[in-house]
Formats: sequence, structure tokens, C-alpha cells
Amino acid sequence: MKKIINKPTDVLPEMLNGLAFVHSDLVHRVDGFDIIARNAEKTGKVGIISGGGSGHEPSHAGFVGDGMLSAAVCGAVFTSPTPDQVFEAIKEADEGAGVFMVIKNYSGDVMNFEMAQDMAEMEGIQVASVIVDDDIAVEDSLYTQGRRGVAGTIFVHKILGEMARAGKSLEDIKACADELVKHIHTAGLALSGATVPEVGKPGFVLEEDEIEFGIGIHGEPGYRKEKMQSSHELAQELVTKLVDSFSAKAGDKFGLLINGLGATPLMEQYIFANDVAQLLAEKGVTVTYKKLGNYMTSIDMAGLSLTLIQLENEDWLAALESPVTTIAWG
Amino acid sequence: MKKIINKPTDVLPEMLNGLAFVHSDLVHRVDGFDIIARNAEKTGKVGIISGGGSGHEPSHAGFVGDGMLSAAVCGAVFTSPTPDQVFEAIKEADEGAGVFMVIKNYSGDVMNFEMAQDMAEMEGIQVASVIVDDDIAVEDSLYTQGRRGVAGTIFVHKILGEMARAGKSLEDIKACADELVKHIHTAGLALSGATVPEVGKPGFVLEEDEIEFGIGIHGEPGYRKEKMQSSHELAQELVTKLVDSFSAKAGDKFGLLINGLGATPLMEQYIFANDVAQLLAEKGVTVTYKKLGNYMTSIDMAGLSLTLIQLENEDWLAALESPVTTIAWG
Repeated sequence: MKKIINKPTDVLPEMLNGLAFVHSDLVHRVDGFDIIARNAEKTGKVGIISGGGSGHEPSHAGFVGDGMLSAAVCGAVFTSPTPDQVFEAIKEADEGAGVFMVIKNYSGDVMNFEMAQDMAEMEGIQVASVIVDDDIAVEDSLYTQGRRGVAGTIFVHKILGEMARAGKSLEDIKACADELVKHIHTAGLALSGATVPEVGKPGFVLEEDEIEFGIGIHGEPGYRKEKMQSSHELAQELVTKLVDSFSAKAGDKFGLLINGLGATPLMEQYIFANDVAQLLAEKGVTVTYKKLGNYMTSIDMAGLSLTLIQLENEDWLAALESPVTTIAWG
Repeated sequence: MKKIINKPTDVLPEMLNGLAFVHSDLVHRVDGFDIIARNAEKTGKVGIISGGGSGHEPSHAGFVGDGMLSAAVCGAVFTSPTPDQVFEAIKEADEGAGVFMVIKNYSGDVMNFEMAQDMAEMEGIQVASVIVDDDIAVEDSLYTQGRRGVAGTIFVHKILGEMARAGKSLEDIKACADELVKHIHTAGLALSGATVPEVGKPGFVLEEDEIEFGIGIHGEPGYRKEKMQSSHELAQELVTKLVDSFSAKAGDKFGLLINGLGATPLMEQYIFANDVAQLLAEKGVTVTYKKLGNYMTSIDMAGLSLTLIQLENEDWLAALESPVTTIAWG
């Protein structure tokens, strides 16, 4: 393992301190906690929090800002944050109108966020939540009952964050969230495994000419290994799988996110995007929102994911397009 | 080589088409050329162009936008764009007030941009330029007389782009550029080499426990190989080298850019940032502007660079802080 770190056990606090140093104009680290919160004044609106294990940077601290997340709670690498950390994030995000939690579907995250919700409600803070399970690759996985939550979660941050900024109630946000998560699907592929610093070697190894479809963002097994293929063939697999997963009709509008998993150069992501564009056009899918970059990574994994969101509701597109100032999402 | 591409010879056009697809709201590909230009209306201001070989994404197309670059001209991977491509970028950027070229110091780039300048001047377009040579690692290199131009170039884009947006003349921009480039220094290190798709194997290989200081963004040799060290020790080497390279006095203000070379996770970049912050504080250096991310990459190279800009002039800080809407710089 060759990594720019100090002690593997110090990765989380040092990373958070570095992030708070670089982005001191936008965010701060909550004293004594592994939480990144925004600097903005509290204005009595619903707070939105998210988080989970670290190793997915810029998720989720990179999405903290007015119109997106109020705070992100950061567990150790690939490890759920503890209930007391989540509880503190809820208190940090609370402006008096309740706090909404966006939880990726991993058993540890779900359990710990829900325990934190109980703790907050005992202190009189109203809390609601949604579980994001956008990864259509597999049902049930190493750390998940049902489907995993991956890059599509960022669309949920953005749309709910815009609703909060617009002054919507916790109930309205909850209703939107429940509908929204049904319309976001993701599928990915890996060229190589991620190395957790405290482990010191990759979580899985692929052959020199091998890829795996459907790998999870913690290296959970996917649905098929194959020989390396062209970008066009890889795009065909993911686009077909995703388009078929929606009950789409002519005229439906979609947004897309091409997401690098950490070690895949933008060069490759853009080449893949070119293939995705052709394939979606061939299938008659209209794309009205597009985003590409390293947003939900898996440390140093090479690979990428493709997310489609079916823009059932005009407000969702408007919310996606609304400008925001965060570390990682413009 | 395991890369998400189609034919290695198609990397450049497919990447540019993918980029133009994803970011069609901001930029477009100039028909028939390897140029990414902004969509904004022409308003009679100085145009700013930059470019060079591809493989450094998001450089330079990621910095095209009002207040930064008018257009970026993109050569094949690690290969200078031809004079006719640069000439076309000049014509694209021309709004009647002249065009300023930001050139990284590589012999091929310098020669081809200057030939394009001659072609443009013969057609009556006023052109001026600056050569950026911020990399203090080595003098003379594989493709360079003097020092190489690397990540500090992006500060030049931002500051000159803001001057152009403010309506400054070509002469004013040239005078600022000549002063500015003396105050930007960069030093970097690599953990692994980059693989050019048409070559198919890394340009250089380091041992499993080895790093190299001062590697160029095309894999040009650095100034010292050493055993892998802690982030703090790596930061100490680069910070000391950089701070010593300026004739700094107490009270001087600096901006910094920590730049990932492509395959280095944000996790490691933030840990490095935390060490840089401590070391600069110990040396009494005041940092008033900070940025971190993958901005001037070397395809899939692991490693990073640190850039310091001495903010001699209040206007430079204001220009750096001024908001801009581009693909990669916020």
C-alpha cells in the first residue's frame, strides 16, 4: 500500500481537519465531532443531513451548503457513523423546523441513523428520513438488505436541499423523498479494488484483463465478471440495464450522472459519456440534465457508475438546475 | 492497460464530444476542431485562450467560461496542439479587442502557439502571450528549456480571465501576466506513472515503496527518488522547497493549490492539506486563498503537487475569489 497518509488510524480526523482548512469559507468541523457543517446562518428552515462511512469523498461533506446539506456526518473508512455522531449532526442541522436524514441503504447506517432519530425525538427535535437504494445491480449484499445506496443519493441531496432552501415543511420533504427515490437507478462497474488504509491491501482483485459489473462502493460483489471491453460495450451493458429498469414511455425526461469511483481519469469518463449519449439517443431517451465527475467514490477504485433519474416532476429538474455553492457540486 | 476507451487513436475526439455533451449548457466543441469554447455572447472584450496536450483533464477545457478562458485548444494526449488548431482558437476567442494566450512552458507548445500568433497577426488579430514556468523542481527537462509549466497555470487563467471580464486591455493583461508568473511556484511528487493510451504502459515505474519528487506532468524525471514517507514528511519537503523559493517577508500573503494528479483520492489530498496547513503556520506564512482537487492531472498518475502564489497585489486575491461558472472551477 502506497498512500499519502500518516497513521492509518488518523485518516478520518486528519482528512476532516484538512477539508475544514481548505474550505473554511464554506464549512467547518463541528468541535469534537466527525461532522462537517455549513457556515451559513440558521434561518428556521428544515435541516438536511446525510453521511455514512468515509472513503467516498467528496461524499458527503462536499455537498454541504445552503440549498443542499446542512451537515454531513463522517464515519471511519467504510464504517457507519455512530448514533451519537449522527445525533450531534441532527442537533447541528436543527433550525427549529425539523431535520431530514438522507440515508444510504446499508444496515449499519440505517440502524445508527434511526437510533439517532430516537435520541433527537426524545429531545423534542422532529426528524424524518428516507433510505436511498438506487443501485439496481443486486438484491441483498454484504452490508445491505435489499438494494444498496450509491451515487444517486446525491440527486436526493440536491432536490431535497433545494426544497429546504425554499422553505418547504418536513412533511412536504418527506413526501417528495419517498416518491423521488423510486425514480433514481444506478449501475456501475469496477476495473480494480479499493484499499482501505487500515487493511493495507485491496478488498478484491481483478485480473489484468477483467472487469466486474455491479460492484458496490465498498467492494461488495457485483453480478458478473467479464473480460475487459470497449467503452461502448461497457456503456451498452449499463445503459440497457438502466433503461429497462424504468417503466419509461416516449417523451419521458431523464437526468444522468456519470460518476468516477476514484482512480478513473476524466478522460475515460468523458469517452464513456460520449458512448452513453449515443446509446440513449438510439433508445429515444431524452436527457435534460447531465453531470459527470468523481462524486461518490470508493477510495482508489478504478471504475464508474451511471445514474439515471426519471424526471417525473418538473420541480425536480428545476431543483437540480438551481445553483448551489458547495465544495463539490456547482 | 485497462482503460475505459474505444480505439486509442479515438481518445481525443471522443473525449471532446463527451465533454461537449455533458456540459452543453456551458461550452461547445468548435466544429471540425479540437477546441472547446464558451457559449457566452461576444461582448468586445479581450479573449483568453490556453491549451496544450490532452491528458491533464479538467485542464484546460474545464476552465472555459466567462471570467476565465474563452477557449481551450486540445492536442492529442501529451502532444502539443498544431498551429492551425491554435490559430482557430484565437479566431474563436477574438471579440475585436485582441487575444491573450496562456502557454505552459513546453517547447512544442511555445513553438506552435507562437506560429499561430504570427498567423493571427497576419489576419489583423492582435495577440499577446505569457509563458508559465511555475514548476521549480528542475531546470530544463525532456520537453522544456528552463522550468516546466504545471498546475500554477490555472491561477493565471483565473486572474487574467477576471481582468478580461472587467474589460482590461490586452496591454494591461500582458503587463499583469508578466508580473504574475514570477510569483507562482509549484512542486510535486509522484507515486506511480501515467499510461498514455496509445503507448499502453506507464511512462515510468516506481517500486512498491518508492516515490519521486519533482516528476513532470508528462512523466518527465524529477529531482530525487526516495522511500515512501508519511504525508507530513512529504509535505515538509514540498513546503520547505516552495517557501524557500520565494523571497518572502513577514506579512506576505499567499494562496495555495493542492492538486491531485489523477489517481490520488481526495482523502489523501485532504490529509496532505492538513499537514501543509500546519507546516505553513509553523513557518509564519499567511494563507488567504486555498483550493484543492484534481485540476492539472497526468492521466492516471498517483501523486500531487503544491502550488503557492505570492499575493503581491490585492487585485490578484480579488480576482481569485471572484465567482466563475466553468466545468471545473467554482
